[in-house]
Amino acid sequence: MLGLMQQRPLLISTLVDYAAQWHGEREIVSRDPEGAIHRTNYAEVAARAKRLANALDALGIAQGDRVATLAWNGFRHLELYYGVTSSGRVLHTVNPRLFPDQLAYIMHHAEDGYVFFDPVFAPLVEALAPRLPQVRGWVSLSDRAGLPDVKVDNLLVYEELLAAASADYSWPPLDENAASTLCYTSGTTGNPKGVLYSHRSTVLHAFAACAVDGLGLSGRDSFLVVVPLFHANAWSVPFSGAMCGMKLVLPGPRLDPESLFALLVDEGCTKSGGVPTVWLNFLTWIEANRASLDLGRLRLKTVLCGGSAPPRAIIEKFHELLGVFLLHAWGMTETSPIVTVGAPLAKHDGMSGAALVDVQAKQGRQVCGVELKLARPDGGEAPHDGVSVGELKVRGNWIVSGYFKGEGGQVLDEDGWFSTGDVATIDPDGYVQLTDRLKDVIKSGGEWISSIEIENLAMSHPEVFEAAVVAVAHPVWQERPLLIVQPRVGFAPTRESILAFLTERLPKWQVPEDVAFVDSLPHTATGKLLKTELRQRFHGHLAVAG
Amino acid sequence: MLGLMQQRPLLISTLVDYAAQWHGEREIVSRDPEGAIHRTNYAEVAARAKRLANALDALGIAQGDRVATLAWNGFRHLELYYGVTSSGRVLHTVNPRLFPDQLAYIMHHAEDGYVFFDPVFAPLVEALAPRLPQVRGWVSLSDRAGLPDVKVDNLLVYEELLAAASADYSWPPLDENAASTLCYTSGTTGNPKGVLYSHRSTVLHAFAACAVDGLGLSGRDSFLVVVPLFHANAWSVPFSGAMCGMKLVLPGPRLDPESLFALLVDEGCTKSGGVPTVWLNFLTWIEANRASLDLGRLRLKTVLCGGSAPPRAIIEKFHELLGVFLLHAWGMTETSPIVTVGAPLAKHDGMSGAALVDVQAKQGRQVCGVELKLARPDGGEAPHDGVSVGELKVRGNWIVSGYFKGEGGQVLDEDGWFSTGDVATIDPDGYVQLTDRLKDVIKSGGEWISSIEIENLAMSHPEVFEAAVVAVAHPVWQERPLLIVQPRVGFAPTRESILAFLTERLPKWQVPEDVAFVDSLPHTATGKLLKTELRQRFHGHLAVAG
Repeated sequence: MLGLMQQRPLLISTLVDYAAQWHGEREIVSRDPEGAIHRTNYAEVAARAKRLANALDALGIAQGDRVATLAWNGFRHLELYYGVTSSGRVLHTVNPRLFPDQLAYIMHHAEDGYVFFDPVFAPLVEALAPRLPQVRGWVSLSDRAGLPDVKVDNLLVYEELLAAASADYSWPPLDENAASTLCYTSGTTGNPKGVLYSHRSTVLHAFAACAVDGLGLSGRDSFLVVVPLFHANAWSVPFSGAMCGMKLVLPGPRLDPESLFALLVDEGCTKSGGVPTVWLNFLTWIEANRASLDLGRLRLKTVLCGGSAPPRAIIEKFHELLGVFLLHAWGMTETSPIVTVGAPLAKHDGMSGAALVDVQAKQGRQVCGVELKLARPDGGEAPHDGVSVGELKVRGNWIVSGYFKGEGGQVLDEDGWFSTGDVATIDPDGYVQLTDRLKDVIKSGGEWISSIEIENLAMSHPEVFEAAVVAVAHPVWQERPLLIVQPRVGFAPTRESILAFLTERLPKWQVPEDVAFVDSLPHTATGKLLKTELRQRFHGHLAVAG
Repeated sequence: MLGLMQQRPLLISTLVDYAAQWHGEREIVSRDPEGAIHRTNYAEVAARAKRLANALDALGIAQGDRVATLAWNGFRHLELYYGVTSSGRVLHTVNPRLFPDQLAYIMHHAEDGYVFFDPVFAPLVEALAPRLPQVRGWVSLSDRAGLPDVKVDNLLVYEELLAAASADYSWPPLDENAASTLCYTSGTTGNPKGVLYSHRSTVLHAFAACAVDGLGLSGRDSFLVVVPLFHANAWSVPFSGAMCGMKLVLPGPRLDPESLFALLVDEGCTKSGGVPTVWLNFLTWIEANRASLDLGRLRLKTVLCGGSAPPRAIIEKFHELLGVFLLHAWGMTETSPIVTVGAPLAKHDGMSGAALVDVQAKQGRQVCGVELKLARPDGGEAPHDGVSVGELKVRGNWIVSGYFKGEGGQVLDEDGWFSTGDVATIDPDGYVQLTDRLKDVIKSGGEWISSIEIENLAMSHPEVFEAAVVAVAHPVWQERPLLIVQPRVGFAPTRESILAFLTERLPKWQVPEDVAFVDSLPHTATGKLLKTELRQRFHGHLAVAG
């Protein structure tokens, strides 16, 4: 028997209309590349998003067609977020920091028909245009005066498109499962793969973001959106912001500490969100300049941090220097992204200092609306004891069911779980702690051993400069950990001294099978250990050594 | 083009599983009629709800069948909330305070097959049983020792049913639009009508309740559930509580101030919710006993209030005596119930005193997820100027589409709007202020005039004891307001003095057409003005008077 409640589709347009009607005067503040401040509000942004929808109609862009952006965080980008999706097209937010080859691959694969770009990306657009023949138009996110000198066919001006379009528009009825936005994963292995979000997934995800124990977003907040709008839906902020009528502050390309600080103070920001790197720079600058800064004017209370794990020092400095709570969250492009959030529990009331940092440093607890499990190699679930490791698998309405155009094939197991590739523990309170990427874990006799944990331990040995742990083949245990050490200059630690050091600090079965010494460890261009090379080189180490 | 996100049904069972897994040890505290405290938690309640589901299977209760409760707020009632709905049956929460004739009508209409009742309702059950031949079993919410002396066929004992049932159960997959709970409106006109909620409506409504700017519920909260579980889903608390892992304190039948205060203090309650009457008694008692109470032990921060408008004195006293913020919400059984919530805006930061009470006394702002409009008699929308009146019409996923078994016929207009029968203004900030029931409004020449506003004004005249305003027929304006006055003893105000008094305080077109004097105004048994009688008596007043 069905209930007798209304069934209305969950659509992004309902969020846009809500913000326009009930939070119409709530500000949207943008900073352009030259530092000039632009002020608008939800009512105006929604009205311009409707003009944009008429302009897209006039350009002949069909429902479901992809419209790409190459843009920083600003009000025009936000209008595209609302107008493209609510009118039934798919917004493809492209990361302009990728290499041109990657960009060309992604935008070709997505079949982007129109590209809306910030004028600062004119050189990039010129380089891409010849490689993207399917693009029917390039739209400069500016007025005529701001149009850059860019040589592409079908160059259009955003403000002219809007000026020529009627203000009269009603969002179309759509299937709530219709596609809304498209993001490509950075693709550490293989080609980048597209994640195609739906209106339903987006609205449900926004509800989770507005929950007190989710991101805790409120119409009373002013939010500095440091996370780029081209990163996994900017963690839902464009959508959850509209859902609650939150003031949005969009910093454009300048993410230097001084620019961020000025916006935080001038716009009365209570919350912000971004990756650890930005905050590390920010806090270093605050610390160096605190004597000359009027920190009392800062209203910032909470900073969301994700993308990678923030070092403890960031958590501590936010608290000590600014009285700000770092709210750690975890997810990925494939998960919209929010899966876990480090909201404290009632039992943490009154907790402070290192104990609270311990909680904040973890990736947080599963939010309601998705499901998370810690899968053991044998298919069972690992206990939530803070020690047992497993791979995080997720399931739910804002989790990918497959990649765009079937790339990567079937990505869910028969029960619908998506494998994140992240290895973690979950403590008895439900807090997730990432320990490794699955590919870096040593699978030893049905148990998993974290390479990162052993590396960190080994590096605390006074004679070790850097350490890497990789799996090597073993006749009985399939894989065993091998520790590869680059000694400190002037030291020559022995195998025995290092193993003795580790034996005191690790369960016996996790102690590396052997130690190899190298003059220097190989790294990627971004400074990460190049484990693929080490694995190739040392794969047969035990057979040889044995 | 559809998105490529997982599509999993929005089911109450997902909330129950979430609470059991991620907030398993969070407490559910109940007080029985004798005052004894019972402690359990989400893990145990969920496990017992699964046993209950097996017991319902054993009783042969089919999917979609109605299971009724006659019960106060306690853990067994909560288990029914979870086990009956999650297993695919429909929980019909019956208000035991209704007259036996109404109960017999409702439970017959709902075709309740099994009735789960608190032992204290044994006399009621005995009276109802002969009139409800379709009931196949009566289940006492107790163990064998607590079984009351009640003479009905097929008497069962809840704890024995659970003890005999297997603990092993998996919630079935259900259509997210499947029926979940059933509540009847009290039915001031005509027969009571059933509102049949769905899993989808319930889960979406719970998301709104957990939003910061919704009810703001959090896993950090301990919530004293004063609103009965048989009142409009207890404002979503059983469901939103599970969604966020909130501690629930269930007070049983004793809602006297002393009992409530003891629970608030002993269980560290941070939030509570209930109708104004309960809080009026509570605050009067606090005020009278404050010298002997250790108010410093109270952790209460927010009290939700709805059902009827709380007098300003309640808002003020909560703040002054206890430092508690009264959060005013509005809705009705047909709306799940949450439509508007009085969460403050950023612009209210730092506001206090009478200005803040002005905001709190209004019914609040529309939450995201439903739509609200102020419909004028001519079909247009009234402006949000805080003065123009209109009928509140609502639309959305947790709004009724029709009543159970088609009672009342088509209840939505062609655009899907449900007429609430409430007349209101909406101010420029979006705050709704109820002014009248539609049936009490005077429809004068295409404009609406609030009877309540004129009554309140007239009663501020020093010689008026009580006043009523009703519509009387008018040849030009269709209806005009007639003021009917009962003078204070010893006074004889004149028509002219009262009209002069009102003319100074009302727009000219709202000033009553005439004043009639009576020795006493008629009232209902509950003390409300009996306007139907006044309308009958005075309908032709102007024709006669003219």
